[in-house]
Amino acid sequence: MPGRPGTPARRTRRRNEVTVTLLDIRNVSYSYDGTVNVLADVSLSVEEGTIVGLVGPNGSGKSTLIKNIFDLVRLQSGSLRVGGHEHASPEAKAQGMYLSSNDYLPEFLTAREYLSLLGDLFRTGTDHCAALELFRRFSMEGRYDHLIEDYSHGMRKKTQLVSALVMRRPLTVIDETLNGIDLEALHLSEREFRRLRDEGRSILLCTHDFAVLERLADRVVFLDLGHVVSDEPTHELIAEHGSVATMVFDHLGSDER
Amino acid sequence: MPGRPGTPARRTRRRNEVTVTLLDIRNVSYSYDGTVNVLADVSLSVEEGTIVGLVGPNGSGKSTLIKNIFDLVRLQSGSLRVGGHEHASPEAKAQGMYLSSNDYLPEFLTAREYLSLLGDLFRTGTDHCAALELFRRFSMEGRYDHLIEDYSHGMRKKTQLVSALVMRRPLTVIDETLNGIDLEALHLSEREFRRLRDEGRSILLCTHDFAVLERLADRVVFLDLGHVVSDEPTHELIAEHGSVATMVFDHLGSDER
Amino acid sequence: MPGRPGTPARRTRRRNEVTVTLLDIRNVSYSYDGTVNVLADVSLSVEEGTIVGLVGPNGSGKSTLIKNIFDLVRLQSGSLRVGGHEHASPEAKAQGMYLSSNDYLPEFLTAREYLSLLGDLFRTGTDHCAALELFRRFSMEGRYDHLIEDYSHGMRKKTQLVSALVMRRPLTVIDETLNGIDLEALHLSEREFRRLRDEGRSILLCTHDFAVLERLADRVVFLDLGHVVSDEPTHELIAEHGSVATMVFDHLGSDER
Amino acid sequence: MPGRPGTPARRTRRRNEVTVTLLDIRNVSYSYDGTVNVLADVSLSVEEGTIVGLVGPNGSGKSTLIKNIFDLVRLQSGSLRVGGHEHASPEAKAQGMYLSSNDYLPEFLTAREYLSLLGDLFRTGTDHCAALELFRRFSMEGRYDHLIEDYSHGMRKKTQLVSALVMRRPLTVIDETLNGIDLEALHLSEREFRRLRDEGRSILLCTHDFAVLERLADRVVFLDLGHVVSDEPTHELIAEHGSVATMVFDHLGSDER
Repeated sequence: MPGRPGTPARRTRRRNEVTVTLLDIRNVSYSYDGTVNVLADVSLSVEEGTIVGLVGPNGSGKSTLIKNIFDLVRLQSGSLRVGGHEHASPEAKAQGMYLSSNDYLPEFLTAREYLSLLGDLFRTGTDHCAALELFRRFSMEGRYDHLIEDYSHGMRKKTQLVSALVMRRPLTVIDETLNGIDLEALHLSEREFRRLRDEGRSILLCTHDFAVLERLADRVVFLDLGHVVSDEPTHELIAEHGSVATMVFDHLGSDER
Repeated sequence: MPGRPGTPARRTRRRNEVTVTLLDIRNVSYSYDGTVNVLADVSLSVEEGTIVGLVGPNGSGKSTLIKNIFDLVRLQSGSLRVGGHEHASPEAKAQGMYLSSNDYLPEFLTAREYLSLLGDLFRTGTDHCAALELFRRFSMEGRYDHLIEDYSHGMRKKTQLVSALVMRRPLTVIDETLNGIDLEALHLSEREFRRLRDEGRSILLCTHDFAVLERLADRVVFLDLGHVVSDEPTHELIAEHGSVATMVFDHLGSDER
Repeated sequence: MPGRPGTPARRTRRRNEVTVTLLDIRNVSYSYDGTVNVLADVSLSVEEGTIVGLVGPNGSGKSTLIKNIFDLVRLQSGSLRVGGHEHASPEAKAQGMYLSSNDYLPEFLTAREYLSLLGDLFRTGTDHCAALELFRRFSMEGRYDHLIEDYSHGMRKKTQLVSALVMRRPLTVIDETLNGIDLEALHLSEREFRRLRDEGRSILLCTHDFAVLERLADRVVFLDLGHVVSDEPTHELIAEHGSVATMVFDHLGSDER
Repeated sequence: MPGRPGTPARRTRRRNEVTVTLLDIRNVSYSYDGTVNVLADVSLSVEEGTIVGLVGPNGSGKSTLIKNIFDLVRLQSGSLRVGGHEHASPEAKAQGMYLSSNDYLPEFLTAREYLSLLGDLFRTGTDHCAALELFRRFSMEGRYDHLIEDYSHGMRKKTQLVSALVMRRPLTVIDETLNGIDLEALHLSEREFRRLRDEGRSILLCTHDFAVLERLADRVVFLDLGHVVSDEPTHELIAEHGSVATMVFDHLGSDER
């Protein structure tokens, strides 16, 4: 896997392989009011071809971190690089895609129009055949040319997932988008996420469905009160704590918090 | 499984203890059009003082089963009893409460007004002090007298959970209500559900957050295409399949389906 | 104002005709905290076979008045009669129906199931043929047996309107339900509301689409800060002020408020 | 109508004054499938310093027209100019702003963050003081730094209106955004829209609250089945038909349609 902007590449799981850092977050702090740090010296990295789980309660700084990655708020300190490029550069912005937990989709467009716009934005064009096939497999056959306004909540989430699977950006940040989708869509999404990973693409997966993380994530990062509390390979975390939930809930209930 | 209304409830897992069936579903079939059976001879029971997980993909009949339990559609065949009473009787209806995955809350009422109406409906009155304390712990302090219309999606879900925790019905059916609530609300809910169980109350918990089921459910029922595919104690299911997810996804991907 | 149930309804504007009061609100006051009166001695009446517009800004007490009518909060002082019956009696409750501005519909039901439940509730049964015909005319053909969960916002509003047009209660209170429906649905609704009126049924229509009020309402009541500011026949109001908007906005901008 | 960018704007209704065309739509046709024309040779213009009402039922082509203006679908035939610039140019895109009827706002941002991004996008910066003052007057004091996710539907609409009033683009297209906002917000919005107009800015106002159109619009365009059915000064339309509603509903009910 060549793609070596600066740093040497390594896949974490196989021996003797080079890993390449796709998302590199170093010493990022952020304060809304100049007093309280919502993020305090956060560092984490997502290697190419990995799925990293990000777990955080309210007030963990998780949302602020994501807004920093996508340059939706201005970086105050530290550095953020995507694919080796400074995060606010057009090169960095072309690499990443954000899927929200919510209904932030333009309701006055059809799915086809929305995906066409994304294809223009990323200058990749849009593979409408692939999108139509995903619509079929996500049980939304025949709805591709309907207004998003007429989609149910579940369909909106699945449309977000389809957009990521068609755009196939090097980095996809998925923020609770899997919550509440139907079981078969979940099953299908997991398979497709593994396929993205196998192609060397990366996913930062924010969810507190811990079973999804245990099935999919190569590593789990736990953020609380603006600090990285834990950042380790999923299998080591499970070996140590029994489950992701135990680690998280033990911490939330502990005195040291 | 005797099911003797009147007998005090016991936990199923202790030896030599009597179990009392709270929800008794026997041979229930249902068809919308007289041709295809959405439910085909479904039997399952929820004992007093247990949490039973119910997992089902789209088209499993899960929603139709719940509508039958709450007499929202007319029972076509089989029998349904709640607390020993025929499910359409006022006695049965006074025992159970349904929490939906959606925003089915009267937006023109405040939470206080809504809980007062529920207290009238169940003829139990409403413990507003308990509700206020739960609002505080669910991070909704100061919002109890605001219109539900002004609540976010997360707050609506938490208001549904609070309503169940204040009403404390013998049977609570929770249909994806936990999806997408914040991590601390999830943690708190799990503790409160265990408390309901310890008091001999029962929960039918519909979710495909399999980690929640593995943490909470005494038994997991898997419904597919109108049939009970699997119904066993969670620990046996895990011993056999490794995880709930493996059992479910293996079935969904198998030829015999 | 006698209130003689049984007497055939007459339009108020014809000479020598008997008017029958369907909704009789007298001297209703309401306070949430025992100090501030949200409603201060409100009296108004809706005659059989009339459409009465109710206009009120935030804080007017309009919502509290509606909650009092439907016994969703307890009447504190004054009297409320529907069809001659005390408002909290089953007889009164069987006469009136409330349509909200919001999505307060059971998403886990289909429209057919929802209308069946309403027919049971009012003990009138449900004319599904009429409902299907209205679904067709409201451009929702083929959706009657779909889950409300999958309806768009517009469809939910139209489903509420259909439910009122099928149930045909003596009194329908419509609370901003017309907001944002499509132009043809608005046109159709207006025709159907006139038909309800011609049958002697009554509508209390809350909206600030003043053109709708000028087209439909026999009388307009303007409520502000818990008081009835104005209550007169629409044509007199227009003759005096030019338009409903002028009267309302002049008041909202005036010093005496 | 010359359309001379640079010339100061004048109100059309005064004699001997020069009018400047801000939005110039000429002979625009559009088909989704190459067969049926959703827009058939549509021409209309919005002069500087005017408010133009746009009325259209479902299937009128109104939405497709707006998508063409904002280059969300590709122009197929005819021409579209904004401020004298070809509609797909950066210069044209910097002039116009679209407010939707729906909740298309980034829920993971605060209002402050959202308005900052808009200020970056239009390269105008953001006057947060003005925004805060509008939040206060729209009864949303103290909510400017809260996540949009936690806003009610009404607040989202008002946030859209605030964004337009802070950005003050030469052209604002308002697509049913006023539907269902509270009476005082409506009153305030109307005043602010008039102020935009007095500054020479223009509004294309899509609504079927005909009373709002009669109060605000200098001209009303009625679109049906892809054709401009009527385009005349509001006062002439009223003189001829009595009201906007009469004109529209007569047409919708007529045989020639």
